Amino acid sequence: MERKNIFPVFDRLTSREDKEALLKQRGLAIWMYGLSGSGKTTVAIELEHKLFQKGFICQLLDADNVRTTINNDLGFSLHDREENIRRVAELNKLFIQNGVIVINCFISPTNSIRKMAAEIIGKKDFVEVFFNTPIEICNQRDPKGLYKKAMTGDIEEFTGVSSPFEMPDNPEMEIRTDISTVDECAQKIIDHILPKIEIK
Amino acid sequence: MERKNIFPVFDRLTSREDKEALLKQRGLAIWMYGLSGSGKTTVAIELEHKLFQKGFICQLLDADNVRTTINNDLGFSLHDREENIRRVAELNKLFIQNGVIVINCFISPTNSIRKMAAEIIGKKDFVEVFFNTPIEICNQRDPKGLYKKAMTGDIEEFTGVSSPFEMPDNPEMEIRTDISTVDECAQKIIDHILPKIEIK
Repeated sequence: MERKNIFPVFDRLTSREDKEALLKQRGLAIWMYGLSGSGKTTVAIELEHKLFQKGFICQLLDADNVRTTINNDLGFSLHDREENIRRVAELNKLFIQNGVIVINCFISPTNSIRKMAAEIIGKKDFVEVFFNTPIEICNQRDPKGLYKKAMTGDIEEFTGVSSPFEMPDNPEMEIRTDISTVDECAQKIIDHILPKIEIK
Repeated sequence: MERKNIFPVFDRLTSREDKEALLKQRGLAIWMYGLSGSGKTTVAIELEHKLFQKGFICQLLDADNVRTTINNDLGFSLHDREENIRRVAELNKLFIQNGVIVINCFISPTNSIRKMAAEIIGKKDFVEVFFNTPIEICNQRDPKGLYKKAMTGDIEEFTGVSSPFEMPDNPEMEIRTDISTVDECAQKIIDHILPKIEIK
Protein backbone atom coordinates (compact mmCIF):
# COMPACT_ATOMS: atom_id res chain seq x y z
CA MET A 1 0.00 0.00 0.00
CA GLU A 2 1.09 3.57 -0.76
CA ARG A 3 1.95 5.28 2.52
CA LYS A 4 3.47 8.60 1.41
CA ASN A 5 0.41 10.70 2.32
CA ILE A 6 0.18 9.34 5.87
CA PHE A 7 1.03 11.49 8.90
CA PRO A 8 0.81 9.58 12.21
CA VAL A 9 0.46 11.58 15.42
CA PHE A 10 1.52 8.95 17.98
CA ASP A 11 4.22 11.17 19.47
CA ARG A 12 1.89 14.08 20.21
CA LEU A 13 -0.39 12.05 22.52
CA THR A 14 -0.33 11.20 26.20
CA SER A 15 2.54 8.77 26.62
CA ARG A 16 2.24 5.11 27.45
CA GLU A 17 4.17 5.75 30.66
CA ASP A 18 1.66 8.38 31.81
CA LYS A 19 -1.25 6.07 31.09
CA GLU A 20 0.46 3.19 32.89
CA ALA A 21 1.06 5.40 35.90
CA LEU A 22 -2.64 6.32 36.01
CA LEU A 23 -3.69 2.67 35.65
CA LYS A 24 -1.01 1.45 38.06
CA GLN A 25 -0.05 -1.39 35.74
CA ARG A 26 2.23 -1.96 32.78
CA GLY A 27 0.99 -3.11 29.38
CA LEU A 28 2.08 -6.56 28.25
CA ALA A 29 1.19 -9.18 25.65
CA ILE A 30 0.86 -12.72 27.00
CA TRP A 31 0.99 -14.92 23.93
CA MET A 32 -0.48 -18.36 24.67
CA TYR A 33 -0.20 -20.83 21.85
CA GLY A 34 -0.70 -24.51 21.21
CA LEU A 35 -3.16 -26.96 19.69
CA SER A 36 -6.93 -26.61 19.77
CA GLY A 37 -8.03 -28.25 23.01
CA SER A 38 -4.71 -27.62 24.74
CA GLY A 39 -6.49 -25.49 27.37
CA LYS A 40 -5.47 -21.98 26.30
CA THR A 41 -8.84 -20.28 26.64
CA THR A 42 -9.79 -22.12 29.84
CA VAL A 43 -6.57 -21.01 31.52
CA ALA A 44 -6.91 -17.52 30.00
CA ILE A 45 -10.35 -17.00 31.56
CA GLU A 46 -9.02 -18.06 34.96
CA LEU A 47 -5.96 -15.85 34.50
CA GLU A 48 -8.11 -12.87 33.55
CA HIS A 49 -10.27 -13.29 36.67
CA LYS A 50 -7.25 -13.70 38.96
CA LEU A 51 -5.53 -10.63 37.53
CA PHE A 52 -8.70 -8.55 37.82
CA GLN A 53 -8.97 -9.55 41.49
CA LYS A 54 -5.50 -8.07 41.88
CA GLY A 55 -6.69 -4.87 40.17
CA PHE A 56 -5.24 -5.48 36.70
CA ILE A 57 -7.25 -4.69 33.55
CA CYS A 58 -6.77 -7.32 30.84
CA GLN A 59 -8.18 -7.85 27.38
CA LEU A 60 -8.55 -11.47 26.29
CA LEU A 61 -8.22 -12.05 22.57
CA ASP A 62 -8.76 -15.44 21.01
CA ALA A 63 -9.34 -16.66 17.50
CA ASP A 64 -13.05 -17.21 18.03
CA ASN A 65 -13.68 -13.69 19.31
CA VAL A 66 -11.45 -11.93 16.81
CA ARG A 67 -12.77 -13.88 13.85
CA THR A 68 -16.38 -12.97 14.61
CA THR A 69 -15.52 -9.26 14.74
CA ILE A 70 -12.55 -7.32 13.44
CA ASN A 71 -11.19 -10.18 11.32
CA ASN A 72 -14.49 -11.56 10.04
CA ASP A 73 -13.25 -11.06 6.47
CA LEU A 74 -10.56 -13.74 6.90
CA GLY A 75 -10.58 -17.49 6.28
CA PHE A 76 -8.10 -20.23 7.18
CA SER A 77 -5.62 -20.25 4.31
CA LEU A 78 -2.00 -19.74 5.33
CA HIS A 79 -2.20 -16.16 4.04
CA ASP A 80 -5.35 -15.45 6.04
CA ARG A 81 -3.91 -17.08 9.17
CA GLU A 82 -0.85 -14.84 8.94
CA GLU A 83 -3.01 -11.77 8.30
CA ASN A 84 -5.16 -12.73 11.30
CA ILE A 85 -2.10 -12.83 13.55
CA ARG A 86 -0.61 -9.68 12.02
CA ARG A 87 -3.73 -7.67 12.85
CA VAL A 88 -4.00 -9.21 16.31
CA ALA A 89 -0.39 -8.22 16.99
CA GLU A 90 -1.16 -4.64 15.93
CA LEU A 91 -4.20 -4.72 18.21
CA ASN A 92 -1.92 -5.81 21.06
CA LYS A 93 0.32 -2.82 20.41
CA LEU A 94 -2.63 -0.45 20.70
CA PHE A 95 -3.80 -1.97 23.98
CA ILE A 96 -0.26 -2.07 25.40
CA GLN A 97 0.13 1.60 24.48
CA ASN A 98 -2.80 2.19 26.87
CA GLY A 99 -1.22 0.10 29.62
CA VAL A 100 -3.63 -2.80 29.14
CA ILE A 101 -2.47 -6.41 29.53
CA VAL A 102 -3.52 -8.56 26.58
CA ILE A 103 -4.06 -12.28 27.05
CA ASN A 104 -3.84 -13.89 23.63
CA CYS A 105 -4.99 -17.43 22.81
CA PHE A 106 -4.04 -18.40 19.29
CA ILE A 107 -2.88 -21.74 17.94
CA SER A 108 -0.04 -19.86 16.15
CA PRO A 109 1.07 -23.06 14.41
CA THR A 110 4.43 -22.00 12.97
CA ASN A 111 7.64 -20.51 14.31
CA SER A 112 7.38 -17.78 11.70
CA ILE A 113 3.89 -16.73 12.83
CA ARG A 114 5.03 -16.58 16.47
CA LYS A 115 8.13 -14.65 15.45
CA MET A 116 6.04 -12.17 13.46
CA ALA A 117 3.78 -11.53 16.46
CA ALA A 118 6.80 -10.98 18.73
CA GLU A 119 8.42 -8.61 16.27
CA ILE A 120 5.31 -6.49 15.69
CA ILE A 121 4.56 -6.24 19.40
CA GLY A 122 8.21 -5.87 20.42
CA LYS A 123 10.08 -8.52 22.37
CA LYS A 124 10.24 -6.58 25.64
CA ASP A 125 6.42 -6.49 25.77
CA PHE A 126 5.92 -10.09 24.68
CA VAL A 127 5.72 -13.17 26.91
CA GLU A 128 5.49 -16.46 25.06
CA VAL A 129 3.58 -19.29 26.77
CA PHE A 130 3.53 -22.68 25.06
CA PHE A 131 0.61 -24.96 25.91
CA ASN A 132 2.34 -28.29 25.46
CA THR A 133 -0.60 -30.67 25.72
CA PRO A 134 -0.16 -34.01 23.92
CA ILE A 135 -2.38 -34.16 20.85
CA GLU A 136 -4.02 -37.39 22.12
CA ILE A 137 -5.34 -35.44 25.12
CA CYS A 138 -6.52 -32.52 22.96
CA ASN A 139 -8.23 -35.03 20.70
CA GLN A 140 -9.97 -36.72 23.66
CA ARG A 141 -11.11 -33.39 25.10
CA ASP A 142 -12.25 -32.02 21.74
CA PRO A 143 -14.32 -29.33 23.50
CA LYS A 144 -15.71 -27.91 20.27
CA GLY A 145 -16.02 -31.20 18.38
CA LEU A 146 -13.47 -29.93 15.89
CA TYR A 147 -11.07 -32.91 15.91
CA LYS A 148 -13.96 -35.18 15.04
CA LYS A 149 -14.92 -32.93 12.16
CA ALA A 150 -11.31 -32.72 11.01
CA MET A 151 -10.95 -36.52 11.06
CA THR A 152 -14.02 -36.95 8.89
CA GLY A 153 -12.86 -34.17 6.56
CA ASP A 154 -15.62 -31.73 7.53
CA ILE A 155 -12.92 -29.18 8.41
CA GLU A 156 -9.95 -28.75 6.10
CA GLU A 157 -6.51 -27.60 7.21
CA PHE A 158 -7.06 -28.33 10.90
CA THR A 159 -3.88 -27.85 12.92
CA GLY A 160 -2.47 -31.12 14.24
CA VAL A 161 -4.64 -33.23 11.92
CA SER A 162 -4.45 -31.94 8.35
CA SER A 163 -2.21 -28.91 8.90
CA PRO A 164 1.15 -28.91 10.72
CA PHE A 165 2.03 -27.57 14.18
CA GLU A 166 5.69 -26.70 14.59
CA MET A 167 6.97 -27.38 18.10
CA PRO A 168 8.92 -24.42 19.51
CA ASP A 169 12.63 -24.93 20.16
CA ASN A 170 13.01 -23.10 23.42
CA PRO A 171 9.74 -21.62 24.70
CA GLU A 172 9.99 -18.93 27.38
CA MET A 173 7.34 -20.75 29.40
CA GLU A 174 5.59 -24.12 29.12
CA ILE A 175 2.16 -24.98 30.50
CA ARG A 176 0.93 -28.56 30.92
CA THR A 177 -2.83 -28.61 31.43
CA ASP A 178 -2.72 -32.42 31.23
CA ILE A 179 -0.81 -32.71 34.52
CA SER A 180 -1.65 -29.43 36.34
CA THR A 181 -4.96 -27.88 37.37
CA VAL A 182 -6.36 -24.78 35.67
CA ASP A 183 -5.67 -22.85 38.87
CA GLU A 184 -2.04 -24.02 39.00
CA CYS A 185 -1.48 -23.13 35.35
CA ALA A 186 -2.93 -19.63 35.79
CA GLN A 187 -0.88 -19.09 38.94
CA LYS A 188 2.32 -20.16 37.20
CA ILE A 189 1.75 -17.53 34.52
CA ILE A 190 0.96 -14.86 37.12
CA ASP A 191 4.18 -15.63 39.02
CA HIS A 192 6.10 -15.17 35.79
CA ILE A 193 4.48 -11.94 34.62
CA LEU A 194 3.85 -10.10 37.89
CA PRO A 195 7.30 -8.43 37.92
CA LYS A 196 6.60 -7.18 34.38
CA ILE A 197 3.16 -5.65 35.03
CA GLU A 198 3.43 -4.33 38.58
CA ILE A 199 4.18 -0.68 39.28
CA LYS A 200 5.37 -0.39 42.85
CA MET B 1 -17.03 -16.44 6.02
CA GLU B 2 -18.08 -19.74 7.61
CA ARG B 3 -18.68 -19.15 11.30
CA LYS B 4 -20.17 -22.44 12.49
CA ASN B 5 -17.00 -23.63 14.26
CA ILE B 6 -16.60 -20.43 16.29
CA PHE B 7 -17.24 -20.34 20.04
CA PRO B 8 -16.87 -16.85 21.53
CA VAL B 9 -16.28 -16.55 25.28
CA PHE B 10 -17.25 -12.88 25.83
CA ASP B 11 -19.80 -13.74 28.51
CA ARG B 12 -17.34 -15.66 30.70
CA LEU B 13 -14.98 -12.72 31.20
CA THR B 14 -14.83 -9.84 33.66
CA SER B 15 -17.71 -7.57 32.71
CA ARG B 16 -17.43 -4.15 31.17
CA GLU B 17 -19.15 -2.71 34.26
CA ASP B 18 -16.52 -4.19 36.57
CA LYS B 19 -13.70 -2.83 34.45
CA GLU B 20 -15.36 0.59 34.28
CA ALA B 21 -15.72 0.62 38.06
CA LEU B 22 -12.01 -0.15 38.44
CA LEU B 23 -11.05 2.55 35.91
CA LYS B 24 -13.59 5.01 37.30
CA GLN B 25 -14.76 5.94 33.81
CA ARG B 26 -17.23 4.70 31.24
CA GLY B 27 -16.23 3.57 27.75
CA LEU B 28 -17.45 5.71 24.87
CA ALA B 29 -16.79 6.24 21.17
CA ILE B 30 -16.44 9.88 20.13
CA TRP B 31 -16.81 9.83 16.36
CA MET B 32 -15.38 13.00 14.82
CA TYR B 33 -15.88 13.33 11.12
CA GLY B 34 -15.49 15.89 8.39
CA LEU B 35 -13.20 16.92 5.57
CA SER B 36 -9.42 16.59 5.60
CA GLY B 37 -8.15 19.82 7.15
CA SER B 38 -11.35 20.41 9.14
CA GLY B 39 -9.37 20.22 12.39
CA LYS B 40 -10.39 16.78 13.68
CA THR B 41 -6.96 15.56 14.76
CA THR B 42 -5.84 18.91 16.17
CA VAL B 43 -8.93 19.09 18.38
CA ALA B 44 -8.62 15.38 19.21
CA ILE B 45 -5.08 15.79 20.55
CA GLU B 46 -6.21 18.71 22.75
CA LEU B 47 -9.25 16.72 23.87
CA GLU B 48 -7.10 13.71 24.75
CA HIS B 49 -4.78 15.86 26.87
CA LYS B 50 -7.63 17.63 28.66
CA LEU B 51 -9.37 14.34 29.43
CA PHE B 52 -6.17 12.76 30.71
CA GLN B 53 -5.68 15.74 33.02
CA LYS B 54 -9.08 14.86 34.46
CA GLY B 55 -7.94 11.25 34.89
CA PHE B 56 -9.60 9.70 31.84
CA ILE B 57 -7.80 7.16 29.66
CA CYS B 58 -8.48 7.68 25.94
CA GLN B 59 -7.31 6.02 22.77
CA LEU B 60 -7.07 8.25 19.73
CA LEU B 61 -7.65 6.53 16.42
CA ASP B 62 -7.29 8.32 13.13
CA ALA B 63 -6.95 7.21 9.55
CA ASP B 64 -3.22 7.87 9.43
CA ASN B 65 -2.46 5.79 12.52
CA VAL B 66 -4.79 2.93 11.69
CA ARG B 67 -3.69 2.72 8.07
CA THR B 68 -0.02 2.36 9.00
CA THR B 69 -0.79 -0.53 11.36
CA ILE B 70 -3.81 -2.80 11.64
CA ASN B 71 -5.35 -1.73 8.33
CA ASN B 72 -2.17 -1.45 6.28
CA ASP B 73 -3.62 -3.94 3.81
CA LEU B 74 -6.33 -1.49 2.71
CA GLY B 75 -6.43 1.14 -0.03
CA PHE B 76 -8.88 3.94 -0.78
CA SER B 77 -11.55 2.31 -2.95
CA LEU B 78 -15.10 2.58 -1.60
CA HIS B 79 -14.90 -1.08 -0.50
CA ASP B 80 -11.62 -0.52 1.32
CA ARG B 81 -12.89 2.69 2.96
CA GLU B 82 -15.89 0.81 4.28
CA GLU B 83 -13.74 -2.08 5.47
CA ASN B 84 -11.41 0.42 7.16
CA ILE B 85 -14.33 1.93 9.10
CA ARG B 86 -15.85 -1.48 9.85
CA ARG B 87 -12.64 -2.69 11.52
CA VAL B 88 -12.19 0.61 13.35
CA ALA B 89 -15.73 0.28 14.70
CA GLU B 90 -14.96 -3.24 15.94
CA LEU B 91 -11.78 -1.88 17.53
CA ASN B 92 -13.90 0.74 19.30
CA LYS B 93 -16.11 -2.01 20.70
CA LEU B 94 -13.10 -3.79 22.16
CA PHE B 95 -11.77 -0.65 23.81
CA ILE B 96 -15.21 0.36 25.11
CA GLN B 97 -15.57 -3.13 26.57
CA ASN B 98 -12.50 -2.24 28.65
CA GLY B 99 -13.94 1.09 29.72
CA VAL B 100 -11.64 3.09 27.47
CA ILE B 101 -12.84 6.25 25.71
CA VAL B 102 -12.02 6.20 22.00
CA ILE B 103 -11.52 9.46 20.13
CA ASN B 104 -11.98 8.73 16.44
CA CYS B 105 -10.96 11.07 13.62
CA PHE B 106 -12.16 9.77 10.28
CA ILE B 107 -13.46 11.68 7.27
CA SER B 108 -16.37 9.17 7.13
CA PRO B 109 -17.66 10.73 3.91
CA THR B 110 -21.08 9.09 3.59
CA ASN B 111 -24.16 8.77 5.76
CA SER B 112 -24.03 5.00 5.27
CA ILE B 113 -20.44 4.76 6.58
CA ARG B 114 -21.34 6.82 9.65
CA LYS B 115 -24.47 4.74 10.19
CA MET B 116 -22.45 1.51 9.93
CA ALA B 117 -20.00 2.72 12.58
CA ALA B 118 -22.85 3.70 14.91
CA GLU B 119 -24.58 0.36 14.44
CA ILE B 120 -21.48 -1.76 15.05
CA ILE B 121 -20.49 0.24 18.13
CA GLY B 122 -24.04 0.62 19.38
CA LYS B 123 -25.85 3.95 19.50
CA LYS B 124 -25.74 4.33 23.27
CA ASP B 125 -21.93 4.25 23.18
CA PHE B 126 -21.60 6.50 20.15
CA VAL B 127 -21.31 10.30 20.10
CA GLU B 128 -21.26 11.83 16.64
CA VAL B 129 -19.31 15.09 16.22
CA PHE B 130 -19.44 16.80 12.82
CA PHE B 131 -16.52 19.08 11.98
CA ASN B 132 -18.35 21.52 9.73
CA THR B 133 -15.43 23.54 8.37
CA PRO B 134 -16.05 25.17 4.96
CA ILE B 135 -14.03 23.43 2.28
CA GLU B 136 -12.39 26.73 1.28
CA ILE B 137 -10.84 26.92 4.76
CA CYS B 138 -9.74 23.26 4.69
CA ASN B 139 -8.22 23.90 1.30
CA GLN B 140 -6.33 26.99 2.54
CA ARG B 141 -5.03 25.14 5.60
CA ASP B 142 -4.09 22.00 3.65
CA PRO B 143 -1.84 20.84 6.54
CA LYS B 144 -0.64 17.77 4.68
CA GLY B 145 -0.51 19.27 1.19
CA LEU B 146 -3.20 16.84 0.11
CA TYR B 147 -5.64 19.30 -1.49
CA LYS B 148 -2.85 20.54 -3.69
CA LYS B 149 -2.04 16.98 -4.74
CA ALA B 150 -5.72 16.21 -5.31
CA MET B 151 -6.15 19.31 -7.51
CA THR B 152 -3.23 18.28 -9.70
CA GLY B 153 -4.48 14.68 -9.84
CA ASP B 154 -1.62 13.24 -7.78
CA ILE B 155 -4.20 11.77 -5.41
CA GLU B 156 -7.32 10.14 -6.81
CA GLU B 157 -10.65 9.95 -5.03
CA PHE B 158 -9.88 12.71 -2.54
CA THR B 159 -12.92 13.59 -0.45
CA GLY B 160 -14.30 17.04 -1.24
CA VAL B 161 -12.33 17.31 -4.48
CA SER B 162 -12.72 14.17 -6.56
CA SER B 163 -14.86 12.11 -4.20
CA PRO B 164 -18.11 13.26 -2.52
CA PHE B 165 -18.72 14.24 1.09
CA GLU B 166 -22.35 13.85 2.17
CA MET B 167 -23.42 16.52 4.68
CA PRO B 168 -25.22 15.01 7.69
CA ASP B 169 -28.89 15.89 8.13
CA ASN B 170 -29.01 16.36 11.85
CA PRO B 171 -25.63 15.86 13.56
CA GLU B 172 -25.66 15.30 17.32
CA MET B 173 -22.94 17.90 17.69
CA GLU B 174 -21.27 20.39 15.38
CA ILE B 175 -17.78 21.85 15.75
CA ARG B 176 -16.61 24.95 13.90
CA THR B 177 -12.84 25.22 14.02
CA ASP B 178 -13.03 28.16 11.61
CA ILE B 179 -14.74 30.39 14.19
CA SER B 180 -13.70 28.83 17.54
CA THR B 181 -10.29 28.12 19.07
CA VAL B 182 -8.96 24.60 19.48
CA ASP B 183 -9.40 24.96 23.23
CA GLU B 184 -13.04 26.05 22.86
CA CYS B 185 -13.80 23.18 20.50
CA ALA B 186 -12.26 20.58 22.84
CA GLN B 187 -14.09 22.07 25.82
CA LYS B 188 -17.43 21.98 24.00
CA ILE B 189 -16.97 18.25 23.37
CA ILE B 190 -15.97 17.63 26.99
CA ASP B 191 -19.06 19.45 28.25
CA HIS B 192 -21.18 17.21 26.05
CA ILE B 193 -19.56 13.87 26.94
CA LEU B 194 -18.71 14.32 30.61
CA PRO B 195 -22.09 13.06 31.85
CA LYS B 196 -21.59 9.93 29.70
CA ILE B 197 -18.10 9.02 30.93
CA GLU B 198 -18.11 10.07 34.57
CA ILE B 199 -18.74 7.57 37.35
CA LYS B 200 -19.70 9.50 40.46
